[in-house]
Amino acid sequence: MRIGVDVGGTTVKIGFIDNYEIKHSYQIETTKDTLFDDVCKSISDYQKNNNIEIEAIGFGIPGVVKDNFIINMPNIGITNFDLAKKVSNYFPNIKIKSCNDANAAALGEALCDDEKPESSYMITLGTGVGGGFVLNGKVLDGAHSACAEIGHMYIDHKHEFLCSCGLKGCLETVASATGIVRLAKTYYRDYETSLKEDDFTAKDVFDKAKENDPLCSFVFDEVSKYLARGIANIACTTDVDVFYIGGGVAACGQILIDSIVKYYKKYCHFALVDTKIKLARLGNKAGMLGAAYL
Amino acid sequence: MRIGVDVGGTTVKIGFIDNYEIKHSYQIETTKDTLFDDVCKSISDYQKNNNIEIEAIGFGIPGVVKDNFIINMPNIGITNFDLAKKVSNYFPNIKIKSCNDANAAALGEALCDDEKPESSYMITLGTGVGGGFVLNGKVLDGAHSACAEIGHMYIDHKHEFLCSCGLKGCLETVASATGIVRLAKTYYRDYETSLKEDDFTAKDVFDKAKENDPLCSFVFDEVSKYLARGIANIACTTDVDVFYIGGGVAACGQILIDSIVKYYKKYCHFALVDTKIKLARLGNKAGMLGAAYL
Repeated sequence: MRIGVDVGGTTVKIGFIDNYEIKHSYQIETTKDTLFDDVCKSISDYQKNNNIEIEAIGFGIPGVVKDNFIINMPNIGITNFDLAKKVSNYFPNIKIKSCNDANAAALGEALCDDEKPESSYMITLGTGVGGGFVLNGKVLDGAHSACAEIGHMYIDHKHEFLCSCGLKGCLETVASATGIVRLAKTYYRDYETSLKEDDFTAKDVFDKAKENDPLCSFVFDEVSKYLARGIANIACTTDVDVFYIGGGVAACGQILIDSIVKYYKKYCHFALVDTKIKLARLGNKAGMLGAAYL
Repeated sequence: MRIGVDVGGTTVKIGFIDNYEIKHSYQIETTKDTLFDDVCKSISDYQKNNNIEIEAIGFGIPGVVKDNFIINMPNIGITNFDLAKKVSNYFPNIKIKSCNDANAAALGEALCDDEKPESSYMITLGTGVGGGFVLNGKVLDGAHSACAEIGHMYIDHKHEFLCSCGLKGCLETVASATGIVRLAKTYYRDYETSLKEDDFTAKDVFDKAKENDPLCSFVFDEVSKYLARGIANIACTTDVDVFYIGGGVAACGQILIDSIVKYYKKYCHFALVDTKIKLARLGNKAGMLGAAYL
């Protein structure tokens, strides 16, 4: 059996996986000082109680990791941590792999896609915008472990909002949950709306867009355009078979995909008009599944 | 020995290559009706006269080719041509490979780089802007044979010139030889210049930029910025080790690279600030070399 560990800011999801299916999963609290001891003990306990054989353990890390060494996990506050050493104390002869959590999710989506694409690009729309580039069943890490940092692609020349990375005009500033709220606030006085000023979430904006609220519909359209531009840029750079759109913002469903596709077809190079754009299917299971098959 | 064939609009370059070195090369005229017969006969003659053994033949095609079948070569006027069948008539037991000419050049640069990068992206600045993405010694063709169509990345929101592809604001409209002339014409009345109106080339613009001609210096700077933006987008999408800048426009040399790097460092994500940007070294030999190692 393969173990996929998806480390998050508040919980760690642990999945026991066989033949691309999660046979059992649970989550534990994300601790700081004893995080990977807690994870390993918990896996070890489950292994003993259920008498299973472990083939490999994979980790999706919310931060920068290279060769099983965690350079940093900013939201958890762990830096320069030798993951391989820690885990091999508990599981001495078991293969360990790790990558960025967005990459793990991208791999999970690619491997569980029935169409078995050769190449795919996942875009995760959450608090920020992340991504993952998967080619022939392998996730591309990049020369600086920064492959698919697409949240920081220059897209918005109109507002050029300042991004957390220090740049201006990044995709993340207009297409993340934070970006959606920012756009709605920016245009609050230009369109009618039933949103309460300064008291709404990205989900509220997209929910009300479905009810044709003028402000929310405008923002939904703008976000779709920015994403379509970003996808068109990634498509001409990589020509992948398929894009998966996931993360909390994509929970609004197929309506977002349809809107992105509408603009993508206008913005993309003619040779790339048939590139598939799909809603990610696995939700919060993608990270565990991908990590298990690193 | 490997044969690399670089098919161009007016001449076909044929190289006899061993251990990444061109041992002998020559060119023949690009014909339309008998193009690949001419190429094969010429290789066959040289083989017999010099008693060499051919290991493989690779073709760089100025157009769209998939599985050794040429879908089209617009500038030569050949469509739906079975390259594999034609070549195997002359060389029945020899491995044949083919790809787009920009991809072949990208592979050539990557293979002949002493630093042996794992991943690289070549940007060719000629009449248009082309590219090639090489990973682990293999060129990425893409799901629609349109990988690295980066000339059609949306970059110029300021002018949004109409591109030959039908889109507006493509990188090619402002960073190709044609684009450079277009920019100089657009700003002709805004800056002093010794260029004669409507009678100059991209080379003239870049040559005079070196002499601090105000218009030409402005255009040189603008082109550098557009390229830096494009490279920053490609870098966050792929995180390659190195970019090579080649093609006729890059003949102006290291001064262009220095200018691009200056802006790249301002525009790129902080994790990608060390990505190398180099002048392509092989010039018009890159296509033959890459084709030979497809």
